[in-house]
Amino acid sequence: MSILNDNFRLFRNAYLFGTVASKVKKYEREHPDRDLIRMDVGDVTLPLCPEIIKYMHRAVDDLSNSSTFMGYGPEYGYKWLRAEIADKIFEPIGIQISPDEVFVSDGANSDLGNIGDLFTPECRVALQDPSYPVYIDASLIDGRAGNPEGDEYSRLTYLDCTAENNFFPAIPEHHVDLIYLCSPNNPTGGALTRDTLAKWIDYARREKAVILYDAAYEAFIRSRDVAHSIYEIDGAREVAIEFRSFSKSAGFTGLRCGYCIVPFELKRNFKDGSEGSLNAMWKRRVCTKFNGPSYVSQRAALGALTKEAMEYSRMATDYYLKNAGVLRDSLSSACSVIAGGIDSPYVWAKAPDGMESWEFFDYLLANASVSCTPGSGFGNCGKGYIRFTGFNTAEKTLRAAEAISTAIARL
Amino acid sequence: MSILNDNFRLFRNAYLFGTVASKVKKYEREHPDRDLIRMDVGDVTLPLCPEIIKYMHRAVDDLSNSSTFMGYGPEYGYKWLRAEIADKIFEPIGIQISPDEVFVSDGANSDLGNIGDLFTPECRVALQDPSYPVYIDASLIDGRAGNPEGDEYSRLTYLDCTAENNFFPAIPEHHVDLIYLCSPNNPTGGALTRDTLAKWIDYARREKAVILYDAAYEAFIRSRDVAHSIYEIDGAREVAIEFRSFSKSAGFTGLRCGYCIVPFELKRNFKDGSEGSLNAMWKRRVCTKFNGPSYVSQRAALGALTKEAMEYSRMATDYYLKNAGVLRDSLSSACSVIAGGIDSPYVWAKAPDGMESWEFFDYLLANASVSCTPGSGFGNCGKGYIRFTGFNTAEKTLRAAEAISTAIARL
Repeated sequence: MSILNDNFRLFRNAYLFGTVASKVKKYEREHPDRDLIRMDVGDVTLPLCPEIIKYMHRAVDDLSNSSTFMGYGPEYGYKWLRAEIADKIFEPIGIQISPDEVFVSDGANSDLGNIGDLFTPECRVALQDPSYPVYIDASLIDGRAGNPEGDEYSRLTYLDCTAENNFFPAIPEHHVDLIYLCSPNNPTGGALTRDTLAKWIDYARREKAVILYDAAYEAFIRSRDVAHSIYEIDGAREVAIEFRSFSKSAGFTGLRCGYCIVPFELKRNFKDGSEGSLNAMWKRRVCTKFNGPSYVSQRAALGALTKEAMEYSRMATDYYLKNAGVLRDSLSSACSVIAGGIDSPYVWAKAPDGMESWEFFDYLLANASVSCTPGSGFGNCGKGYIRFTGFNTAEKTLRAAEAISTAIARL
Repeated sequence: MSILNDNFRLFRNAYLFGTVASKVKKYEREHPDRDLIRMDVGDVTLPLCPEIIKYMHRAVDDLSNSSTFMGYGPEYGYKWLRAEIADKIFEPIGIQISPDEVFVSDGANSDLGNIGDLFTPECRVALQDPSYPVYIDASLIDGRAGNPEGDEYSRLTYLDCTAENNFFPAIPEHHVDLIYLCSPNNPTGGALTRDTLAKWIDYARREKAVILYDAAYEAFIRSRDVAHSIYEIDGAREVAIEFRSFSKSAGFTGLRCGYCIVPFELKRNFKDGSEGSLNAMWKRRVCTKFNGPSYVSQRAALGALTKEAMEYSRMATDYYLKNAGVLRDSLSSACSVIAGGIDSPYVWAKAPDGMESWEFFDYLLANASVSCTPGSGFGNCGKGYIRFTGFNTAEKTLRAAEAISTAIARL
């Protein structure tokens, strides 16, 4: 009697961030005297904005009193939050979104993982290489990856992001159904301009593909020609779901609140050719397998959309960007290729001396007491690269940059 | 190009609780003068225990300061919470659970919906009829339901819970792979004794089936012969996943924190006959498609396991049980069949005069200003029944009981 989902057997690698974390733990255990600086996980470090803290204390108080107590909320988030997201995030950049196109969740990671429920296992998936692991791992669990072939999977289309194309992938020459696009990109830091995005939308319209647009790092965009939302581009409402998060913009990695936009116009076909609305399907999925994010987190998200909190967010993301800039500058002489750190908190660098990703990871851990994330964990094209994050304190980032330079010079 | 999951087309009914909510809203809009009493949704009404509130305020303060700030936590919950769950929930009833068998989540509903990822779509699913909608709806999305046949689906095994068997289902005579068992049951209120549960475990061992044991209402158990956990029974660790929640025990419906237990011994086969550990697979699933529940909710859950909060929980569940008892007593003369309300906050009653579920729902709404949940929404065997909940105030429950009796007398 076989009842287990065979797709789980396709996982060949341990969970990337788990492996990094256990290597870091082991190092700390063995070197209690050294002050390890973590430049690996993309996790915020600055405390929450005082205005958000105020909203949260009030939300906790609401739960302490019968007359203000809040039980189950709508499975897709409270209307006051969905309306405020439309008003404060999209309206200022000229995009009209209905609150009923906004689905509030416990984070972009969950949404990106679960969205696969809407599609057939036969769908052809394309994704940037390197890319954030959830795109491949979820495709794999859902049966869309095919068989392992070397380091890749037979049914996935890898969109190579290399030094040669400046880490911007080419549009595929054949048909695909689902395209994960991450901009600003994790891990390369590449951010798509409006012109480039328009070409992807043309492709998706032509092929009736759906773009799963991961904009978790939108708050870091500073370049004028980079799109803040895919819906800035004409036609996007017919082809794209956009995934957003309060994690990186407002420091919510521990609070768990994100959202996605599923436009009413986004429709595709069932087997018999009839049309289905992805908005209606996602609503049904959310009502079945989810029950809304925490009330306190939703109130915190409302607080994150106040003027005070949005100014604080600008200050915090500037701070992280400055750290990324410090790293970028410091690495630029030692590493032959370097990207990111401009519209993104991530710096993507080629390991020196032709070292492999994990080799350089181990070298930096041992010789600079700095942890990073091996690029090979993000895909084949990440081999020989390493990802650093700007999410540490300015002081530690400076120290890390110096320690890295010294360690590289000793090579 | 067909890319949409055809299984979504199998949904024939609107989402049950959504339909009830819109009928209630419409009634309130049309009768602003009447004081509607909601006895439908299974949502708590008492405020959180002061001790939990204290834990939450402290958790919020943690996030306001760099030195105590918490970002990403482990995807399956903090160890301090998982260890405390093992110690305070299971150890006192003589059950040894490792913290690594505990997976903390954003609620039992999400876990019950997502657990299907571990199994093949071919698995045969059995579930109680009537039952909580997520079991059928998730099976349907995952492709395990088969085709609609009348009011049922061809590949599901319905375990009838009727007045004739006192709402306790018989063990199936044929093979099934996955069995959703809910005890204390939602909606019938029936709670399984240790003796009965032992027979289910025998069946699951013999058939290599997996029992998905929904114990969300465990805190309401008062009868001595009813099992608080399936792991009280020998052999359960090899056949069962138990789903738990802080929603009904500690009033967390708005806070979103639950957990499930996946024992190390629980193993089943892949297609080639090799064995897989469900604990390892669920861990991978959680790390891929989830990112842990809110830090504040996890601290609240830790607070819910203190002596003060556990005493408060006993007081609160006693209060809801007393309400359920009041309803049960009041309905017993008017309704020919009545169940639940003893180890459960739910009272399950046959509508008088052979009325249909929605007919009686509409009648009570119009004539008693009381909302309930139509039994037919929980399955075929729920037809002609109605579910009331004890989750209102004592005062409103008394008023509702009287209004219902008066309305029935007028029939």
